[in-house]
Amino acid sequence: MHKVVTVDLEKDILSENRRIANENRKRLEEHEIVAFDFLGAIGSGKTLIIEKLVEVLKAKGKRGAAIAGDVSGDDDYQRFTAHGIPAANINTGKECHLDAHLVDHALEDLPLDKIDYLFIENVGNLVCPVDFPVGSHKRVVVISVTEGDDMVRKHPVIFAFSDVIVINKVDLAQAMEVDPKILERDARRTNPAAKIIMMDARRGKGMDELVRALGL
Amino acid sequence: MHKVVTVDLEKDILSENRRIANENRKRLEEHEIVAFDFLGAIGSGKTLIIEKLVEVLKAKGKRGAAIAGDVSGDDDYQRFTAHGIPAANINTGKECHLDAHLVDHALEDLPLDKIDYLFIENVGNLVCPVDFPVGSHKRVVVISVTEGDDMVRKHPVIFAFSDVIVINKVDLAQAMEVDPKILERDARRTNPAAKIIMMDARRGKGMDELVRALGL
Repeated sequence: MHKVVTVDLEKDILSENRRIANENRKRLEEHEIVAFDFLGAIGSGKTLIIEKLVEVLKAKGKRGAAIAGDVSGDDDYQRFTAHGIPAANINTGKECHLDAHLVDHALEDLPLDKIDYLFIENVGNLVCPVDFPVGSHKRVVVISVTEGDDMVRKHPVIFAFSDVIVINKVDLAQAMEVDPKILERDARRTNPAAKIIMMDARRGKGMDELVRALGL
Repeated sequence: MHKVVTVDLEKDILSENRRIANENRKRLEEHEIVAFDFLGAIGSGKTLIIEKLVEVLKAKGKRGAAIAGDVSGDDDYQRFTAHGIPAANINTGKECHLDAHLVDHALEDLPLDKIDYLFIENVGNLVCPVDFPVGSHKRVVVISVTEGDDMVRKHPVIFAFSDVIVINKVDLAQAMEVDPKILERDARRTNPAAKIIMMDARRGKGMDELVRALGL
């Protein structure tokens, strides 16, 4: 009985989230904005990669914006605004993922007519965000070799539901005694359709490939 | 209305979890087992630290056991059994944390009369496990400097509710341009009572301190 109630409630929540995600997407498209949802564990390098993409856009005369999703604090939000772009901060409190409703509110705070691309940085973990699309056009999952070579095997679902898989901090692979090829192989098996990019975001390695994969 | 139902259901789930956690704890104490719940992001080094602790116990003639909690796969379980200790594997499917009920089942699979210390490795993230005590005597949270120096500020709750805070991979701090002192300062502010240990688990740095903090 108890279980049935839980499951039904979960279905309600998920279908309501999908409905709002579709609305967000429609709204973004009305403003001709392409949006990306960045997933990945904390410390995998999501914020730095978005910062670099924003600068790439600037150099091309295009306008980026960002939504920073975190349980608490505004560290990432501050990093985005330091680039002079419109940004919004979402604190989820105890929730381990963004949802479409929270992103809907954040869209209210952004000058949608002045944005070409929107980067949504989800809360840092590889479990919860999977079930909650927020209305983005593509999902990018970022992992770091410092997390170990068993990452993909431990969290297959998030890799299966992403369009681009970034394996970051490859420069640290040797120091960590991790083989990035194992991560690449597991990612390929889990999602043969995804674009997989080996990256060292700090030094710019792989950035051109990511820019192409996102169509920027 | 919808919200009220959710909240009540959540309360039910949390109080039922606490009840089972207390039962687990009582059962462990009947067998004179001291148990530790290891929390921390994926790749922070939880498994390696438990492997090293198990070897320390062996050298002292004491018997360790481990429960590996992961969304999927048995990588960590295999690493534990390779040390010749009793171990159990829990796959949570889509859940982002262990709960007391899952640990209760895992206890059934362990030879409780032949164990002195039990290490429970929770699912790798810093959000979900907080609300779900599993019956351990102490909580240890492990973070890695590779995750960035804003980690504690982003997840204060898990640090506030842990007894021991391990800041791991300090050897990589310079390469990552991360200052471990910021993590230490934030951890101290968030939880003045916790024991904070700077560690390089791979090379054994900080291990003696952790052994003392856990009373092994």
